[in-house]
Amino acid sequence: MTERPVTRIARLDIDPNRLDDYLAFLTEEIEASMRLEPGVFMLHATAHKDAPHHIELLEQYASPAAYQAHIASPHFLKYKTGTADMVRKLELIEVEPILLAAKPSV
Amino acid sequence: MTERPVTRIARLDIDPNRLDDYLAFLTEEIEASMRLEPGVFMLHATAHKDAPHHIELLEQYASPAAYQAHIASPHFLKYKTGTADMVRKLELIEVEPILLAAKPSV
Repeated sequence: MTERPVTRIARLDIDPNRLDDYLAFLTEEIEASMRLEPGVFMLHATAHKDAPHHIELLEQYASPAAYQAHIASPHFLKYKTGTADMVRKLELIEVEPILLAAKPSV
Repeated sequence: MTERPVTRIARLDIDPNRLDDYLAFLTEEIEASMRLEPGVFMLHATAHKDAPHHIELLEQYASPAAYQAHIASPHFLKYKTGTADMVRKLELIEVEPILLAAKPSV
Protein backbone atom coordinates (compact mmCIF):
# COMPACT_ATOMS: atom_id res chain seq x y z
CA MET A 1 0.00 0.00 0.00
CA THR A 2 1.45 3.29 -1.02
CA GLU A 3 1.36 6.25 1.32
CA ARG A 4 2.95 8.73 -1.05
CA PRO A 5 1.12 12.01 -1.55
CA VAL A 6 -1.22 12.37 -4.50
CA THR A 7 -0.59 15.50 -6.54
CA ARG A 8 -2.80 16.66 -9.36
CA ILE A 9 -3.64 19.52 -11.65
CA ALA A 10 -7.26 20.15 -12.65
CA ARG A 11 -8.09 22.44 -15.56
CA LEU A 12 -11.71 23.56 -15.73
CA ASP A 13 -13.72 25.49 -18.22
CA ILE A 14 -16.72 27.07 -16.48
CA ASP A 15 -19.85 28.48 -18.07
CA PRO A 16 -19.01 32.23 -17.99
CA ASN A 17 -22.62 33.04 -17.11
CA ARG A 18 -22.33 30.92 -13.96
CA LEU A 19 -18.85 31.96 -12.91
CA ASP A 20 -19.79 33.84 -9.73
CA ASP A 21 -21.91 30.93 -8.52
CA TYR A 22 -19.15 28.49 -9.38
CA LEU A 23 -16.55 30.49 -7.45
CA ALA A 24 -18.78 30.58 -4.38
CA PHE A 25 -19.06 26.77 -4.43
CA LEU A 26 -15.34 26.37 -5.05
CA THR A 27 -14.12 28.65 -2.28
CA GLU A 28 -16.53 27.11 0.21
CA GLU A 29 -15.31 23.65 -0.75
CA ILE A 30 -11.62 24.60 -0.45
CA GLU A 31 -12.11 26.26 2.93
CA ALA A 32 -14.04 23.28 4.30
CA SER A 33 -11.50 20.78 2.95
CA MET A 34 -8.54 22.62 4.48
CA ARG A 35 -10.31 23.03 7.80
CA LEU A 36 -11.79 19.55 8.16
CA GLU A 37 -9.38 17.22 6.37
CA PRO A 38 -5.84 16.79 7.70
CA GLY A 39 -5.08 14.77 4.56
CA VAL A 40 -5.77 17.69 2.21
CA PHE A 41 -2.34 19.32 1.98
CA MET A 42 -2.86 21.92 -0.75
CA LEU A 43 -5.62 23.38 -2.89
CA HIS A 44 -4.32 26.25 -5.00
CA ALA A 45 -7.00 27.69 -7.27
CA THR A 46 -6.26 30.32 -9.91
CA ALA A 47 -8.12 31.85 -12.85
CA HIS A 48 -6.61 32.86 -16.18
CA LYS A 49 -6.40 36.65 -16.28
CA ASP A 50 -7.56 36.90 -19.89
CA ALA A 51 -10.25 34.22 -19.50
CA PRO A 52 -11.42 34.07 -15.86
CA HIS A 53 -13.70 31.11 -16.59
CA HIS A 54 -10.56 29.02 -17.17
CA ILE A 55 -9.73 27.74 -13.70
CA GLU A 56 -6.67 25.75 -12.67
CA LEU A 57 -6.19 23.84 -9.45
CA LEU A 58 -2.97 22.43 -8.05
CA GLU A 59 -3.99 19.84 -5.46
CA GLN A 60 -2.07 17.67 -3.05
CA TYR A 61 -3.40 14.97 -0.73
CA ALA A 62 -1.49 13.00 1.89
CA SER A 63 -2.14 9.63 0.28
CA PRO A 64 -4.49 7.80 -2.07
CA ALA A 65 -6.68 7.04 0.95
CA ALA A 66 -6.81 10.73 1.89
CA TYR A 67 -7.86 11.55 -1.66
CA GLN A 68 -10.60 8.91 -1.58
CA ALA A 69 -11.85 10.29 1.74
CA HIS A 70 -11.85 13.79 0.24
CA ILE A 71 -14.03 12.93 -2.74
CA ALA A 72 -16.48 11.14 -0.43
CA SER A 73 -16.74 14.11 1.97
CA PRO A 74 -20.03 16.02 2.31
CA HIS A 75 -18.41 19.34 1.35
CA PHE A 76 -16.84 17.87 -1.80
CA LEU A 77 -20.10 16.19 -2.81
CA LYS A 78 -21.96 19.49 -2.28
CA TYR A 79 -19.45 21.20 -4.60
CA LYS A 80 -19.53 18.40 -7.17
CA THR A 81 -23.30 18.18 -7.45
CA GLY A 82 -23.84 21.92 -7.05
CA THR A 83 -21.50 22.81 -9.90
CA ALA A 84 -22.22 19.89 -12.24
CA ASP A 85 -24.12 22.03 -14.74
CA MET A 86 -21.59 24.89 -14.57
CA VAL A 87 -18.52 22.89 -15.59
CA ARG A 88 -18.21 22.68 -19.37
CA LYS A 89 -14.90 20.83 -19.36
CA LEU A 90 -12.73 19.17 -16.73
CA GLU A 91 -9.24 17.89 -17.44
CA LEU A 92 -7.38 16.04 -14.66
CA ILE A 93 -3.62 15.62 -14.91
CA GLU A 94 -1.75 13.38 -12.50
CA VAL A 95 1.59 14.96 -11.68
CA GLU A 96 4.69 14.30 -9.61
CA PRO A 97 6.21 17.11 -7.59
CA ILE A 98 9.66 18.19 -8.74
CA LEU A 99 9.95 20.81 -6.03
CA LEU A 100 7.14 22.59 -4.16
CA ALA A 101 8.66 25.70 -2.60
CA ALA A 102 6.80 28.51 -0.85
CA LYS A 103 7.48 31.13 1.76
CA PRO A 104 5.63 30.51 5.04
CA SER A 105 3.34 33.48 4.39
CA VAL A 106 1.90 31.99 1.21
CA MET B 1 2.36 51.67 -9.10
CA THR B 2 0.80 48.38 -8.26
CA GLU B 3 2.22 46.26 -5.47
CA ARG B 4 -0.08 43.34 -5.95
CA PRO B 5 1.52 39.93 -6.24
CA VAL B 6 2.21 38.51 -9.67
CA THR B 7 0.94 34.97 -10.13
CA ARG B 8 1.65 32.87 -13.16
CA ILE B 9 1.53 29.38 -14.61
CA ALA B 10 4.26 28.19 -16.95
CA ARG B 11 3.81 25.08 -19.06
CA LEU B 12 6.99 23.69 -20.56
CA ASP B 13 7.74 20.95 -23.01
CA ILE B 14 11.32 19.74 -22.49
CA ASP B 15 13.42 17.68 -24.88
CA PRO B 16 13.00 14.21 -23.29
CA ASN B 17 16.65 13.42 -24.02
CA ARG B 18 17.74 16.39 -21.92
CA LEU B 19 15.26 16.01 -19.08
CA ASP B 20 17.73 15.09 -16.32
CA ASP B 21 19.94 18.06 -17.20
CA TYR B 22 16.91 20.34 -17.33
CA LEU B 23 15.68 19.22 -13.90
CA ALA B 24 19.11 19.88 -12.37
CA PHE B 25 19.03 23.46 -13.71
CA LEU B 26 15.43 23.94 -12.59
CA THR B 27 15.85 22.70 -9.04
CA GLU B 28 19.03 24.74 -8.56
CA GLU B 29 17.22 27.82 -9.82
CA ILE B 30 14.20 27.29 -7.54
CA GLU B 31 16.36 26.67 -4.48
CA ALA B 32 18.47 29.78 -5.13
CA SER B 33 15.41 31.96 -5.81
CA MET B 34 13.69 30.88 -2.61
CA ARG B 35 16.84 31.35 -0.54
CA LEU B 36 18.04 34.65 -1.99
CA GLU B 37 14.89 36.53 -3.04
CA PRO B 38 12.36 37.61 -0.41
CA GLY B 39 10.07 38.64 -3.28
CA VAL B 40 9.78 35.12 -4.65
CA PHE B 41 6.80 33.75 -2.74
CA MET B 42 6.17 30.43 -4.47
CA LEU B 43 7.68 28.18 -7.11
CA HIS B 44 5.78 24.92 -7.38
CA ALA B 45 7.16 22.66 -10.08
CA THR B 46 5.48 19.43 -11.14
CA ALA B 47 5.85 16.96 -14.00
CA HIS B 48 3.04 15.11 -15.74
CA LYS B 49 3.10 11.49 -14.61
CA ASP B 50 2.40 10.10 -18.06
CA ALA B 51 4.77 12.54 -19.80
CA PRO B 52 7.50 13.68 -17.39
CA HIS B 53 8.93 16.10 -19.96
CA HIS B 54 5.73 18.15 -19.58
CA ILE B 55 6.54 20.47 -16.70
CA GLU B 56 4.18 22.92 -15.00
CA LEU B 57 5.14 25.74 -12.68
CA LEU B 58 2.86 27.74 -10.41
CA GLU B 59 4.77 30.90 -9.54
CA GLN B 60 4.06 33.84 -7.28
CA TYR B 61 6.11 36.99 -6.80
CA ALA B 62 5.51 39.80 -4.30
CA SER B 63 5.06 42.47 -6.98
CA PRO B 64 5.89 43.35 -10.59
CA ALA B 65 9.17 44.80 -9.32
CA ALA B 66 10.01 41.56 -7.51
CA TYR B 67 9.32 39.65 -10.70
CA GLN B 68 11.57 41.95 -12.72
CA ALA B 69 14.33 41.54 -10.14
CA HIS B 70 13.90 37.76 -10.32
CA ILE B 71 14.34 37.51 -14.08
CA ALA B 72 17.45 39.72 -13.85
CA SER B 73 19.04 37.61 -11.09
CA PRO B 74 22.23 35.62 -11.79
CA HIS B 75 20.60 32.32 -10.84
CA PHE B 76 17.64 32.89 -13.15
CA LEU B 77 19.89 33.91 -16.03
CA LYS B 78 22.01 30.80 -15.48
CA TYR B 79 18.87 28.67 -15.69
CA LYS B 80 17.51 30.54 -18.72
CA THR B 81 20.67 30.39 -20.80
CA GLY B 82 21.63 26.92 -19.57
CA THR B 83 18.29 25.39 -20.57
CA ALA B 84 17.58 27.41 -23.73
CA ASP B 85 18.23 24.49 -26.07
CA MET B 86 16.33 22.01 -23.86
CA VAL B 87 13.00 23.84 -23.86
CA ARG B 88 10.93 22.92 -26.90
CA LYS B 89 7.89 24.94 -25.91
CA LEU B 90 7.09 27.48 -23.21
CA GLU B 91 3.58 28.76 -22.51
CA LEU B 92 3.12 31.49 -19.91
CA ILE B 93 -0.34 32.11 -18.44
CA GLU B 94 -1.00 35.12 -16.25
CA VAL B 95 -3.44 34.12 -13.52
CA GLU B 96 -5.24 35.60 -10.56
CA PRO B 97 -5.40 33.64 -7.32
CA ILE B 98 -8.89 32.53 -6.32
CA LEU B 99 -7.66 30.86 -3.15
CA LEU B 100 -4.17 29.51 -2.39
CA ALA B 101 -4.54 27.18 0.56
CA ALA B 102 -1.88 24.88 1.98
CA LYS B 103 -1.04 23.24 5.26
CA PRO B 104 2.07 24.67 6.91
CA SER B 105 4.02 21.50 6.21
CA VAL B 106 3.67 21.85 2.43
